[in-house]
Amino acid sequence: MFKRWLAVSTLLGLILAAGTGLAEQTYRLRLAETWGPNYPIFGDTTKSLAAMVDKMSGGRLKITIDSANKHKAPFGVFEMVKAGQYDMGHSASYYWKGKDPNTLYFTNMPFSMTAPEQLSWFYYGGGLELMQKVYARHGLLSFPGGNTGSQMGGWFRKEINSVADLEGLKMRIPGFAGEVLARLGAKPTNIPPGELYTALERNTIDALEWVGPALDLRMGFHKIAPYYYTGWHEPSAELQFLVNKRSWDKLPADLQEILRVAMRAAAYDMYAMSYYQSAMSWATIKKEYPDVQVKTFPKDVLAALRKANDELLAEFAAADPMAKEIIDSQREYLAKARAWTAISDQAYLNSISEMNE
Amino acid sequence: MFKRWLAVSTLLGLILAAGTGLAEQTYRLRLAETWGPNYPIFGDTTKSLAAMVDKMSGGRLKITIDSANKHKAPFGVFEMVKAGQYDMGHSASYYWKGKDPNTLYFTNMPFSMTAPEQLSWFYYGGGLELMQKVYARHGLLSFPGGNTGSQMGGWFRKEINSVADLEGLKMRIPGFAGEVLARLGAKPTNIPPGELYTALERNTIDALEWVGPALDLRMGFHKIAPYYYTGWHEPSAELQFLVNKRSWDKLPADLQEILRVAMRAAAYDMYAMSYYQSAMSWATIKKEYPDVQVKTFPKDVLAALRKANDELLAEFAAADPMAKEIIDSQREYLAKARAWTAISDQAYLNSISEMNE
Repeated sequence: MFKRWLAVSTLLGLILAAGTGLAEQTYRLRLAETWGPNYPIFGDTTKSLAAMVDKMSGGRLKITIDSANKHKAPFGVFEMVKAGQYDMGHSASYYWKGKDPNTLYFTNMPFSMTAPEQLSWFYYGGGLELMQKVYARHGLLSFPGGNTGSQMGGWFRKEINSVADLEGLKMRIPGFAGEVLARLGAKPTNIPPGELYTALERNTIDALEWVGPALDLRMGFHKIAPYYYTGWHEPSAELQFLVNKRSWDKLPADLQEILRVAMRAAAYDMYAMSYYQSAMSWATIKKEYPDVQVKTFPKDVLAALRKANDELLAEFAAADPMAKEIIDSQREYLAKARAWTAISDQAYLNSISEMNE
Repeated sequence: MFKRWLAVSTLLGLILAAGTGLAEQTYRLRLAETWGPNYPIFGDTTKSLAAMVDKMSGGRLKITIDSANKHKAPFGVFEMVKAGQYDMGHSASYYWKGKDPNTLYFTNMPFSMTAPEQLSWFYYGGGLELMQKVYARHGLLSFPGGNTGSQMGGWFRKEINSVADLEGLKMRIPGFAGEVLARLGAKPTNIPPGELYTALERNTIDALEWVGPALDLRMGFHKIAPYYYTGWHEPSAELQFLVNKRSWDKLPADLQEILRVAMRAAAYDMYAMSYYQSAMSWATIKKEYPDVQVKTFPKDVLAALRKANDELLAEFAAADPMAKEIIDSQREYLAKARAWTAISDQAYLNSISEMNE
């Protein structure tokens, strides 16, 4: 009798364990971010993602976040996620152009789309599909990871009044925009964030671009550079969530959807958060440093920059059919989106400005 | 022996049923939308919400959507959700100003925020909290439900060159903007959508505003009105998800979060979708009807409209402390957000336009 009872209760235990296990199996994803710990806005985005996913899944999907101080490889995120050392990454696509030149186009490009233009291209204009096509070659999925909004052209210690003023200009400006400037005789450099203030103060560099008021305020550049130029090189910048394809495939369908939707919401939220923080920080800068002057590059300087930009893009398109496909998609979409922007937001904003003059 | 076996197997069955029941209890929410069936963009948003929620919950949370042709009360959504006849609604907050005047401010207001300004106000500038405060009085929760982007000022059969041209102007323009126009002598009317084209064609009205290219194209107004005015009255318009508080409270925490995040993602997506569709539809209108002229109201007309708008707002604020709190919050946030917009998106867009001139 006791033996039979034992057999039955064991059976019951097994059934319960199986049922519970199915319902409550916990999946853990490790995410490496390019940023340091608690980096404002960017770090809020990964934390928000993890919190949403945890709560929506009733604790069945956990994301642990390693900041750059932990994994020590801020620009190794692509390789680490590709190798499966991490399941996910939070970074920016254009950092990987050395690994695959076609990753360049998915953060943003000079003279290209504003945030709403870019978001509508990603989600409805074929952008996301093109991005997945590029990353599939590496066993990766890539999703929009949060928009900074329009980036400022940077902090300058002297005014730029002509193309000649760019000759020899030492400026911290990384990536493709640096290449564009170099074509006009500037000397783009990259300097670690921690050394930027001193480099600008001691005239090691003449100018630098960082992001915009939301992230520039804490860097203090407004204390030593009187000119804040409006943007041309990143009219928005979309970060990236990277996911290892094998890690993704292991998730059941409901958790895949939870992760997809949470990444999407977190990315959109970052745009709204950036906008809010930029508004607040710009108000602070204006109040505390009323002498900061906002400048826009003269028309002929912008035209020269755009010409250099277009020449570089034409070279890339000629060299690589995938690059051509992406560049064409962005150019064609931008033409239509900008015509709409011109009669909607731009016309509205200008009509209000003119009334206030 | 057989009896004991029966008892054990019954017990097993009960345990399995209980386990399964707990894991798979299905919650059903009924959503009433103000729109007709398969209404473009708006209807895509509710369908997308239902699909995300279903997939993320593994089928445990189902939303069924009733369009206006089913429930026959497009402007009864507030009352039906309040009464619990429906658990949810998809509509626009300013439709309920007759029920509660303070619901007016959460769609958008004339001369107020663009979509990114408004979204950052809702989620980071205290807007969502103010909206919940207003709706809590009715046992309701309200969340952003999707942005149309900037709305156009409307289709006009004759040009508006002065404030005097507004005198007696018969225009379909509902709500608060209609009240503003009425202060300047215009005759705002509301006409059912299906009769708008004929009313404009037969000069029953002189002008009308609908939404923007994305939704105007199918209405055909461009065939009979040569002037398409840029916007002033809804520089963006955020729809609304309404949720009955008792229906919300019945959901377990994971499904509440699934619903919250899905509403948020669906709402943001609608903004991107609207932007895309506006770009595409505006390209079509320009191609097929190259004679359509885009106009902006003269400065003095806009100034008169804004003066009337500000007077109305001052009256509302003086009459109701809650209205004052909302109006102050929007005005203070807009001042900071617009200063940022001016040096970011607006400066960038204008510098590109000027270069192209």
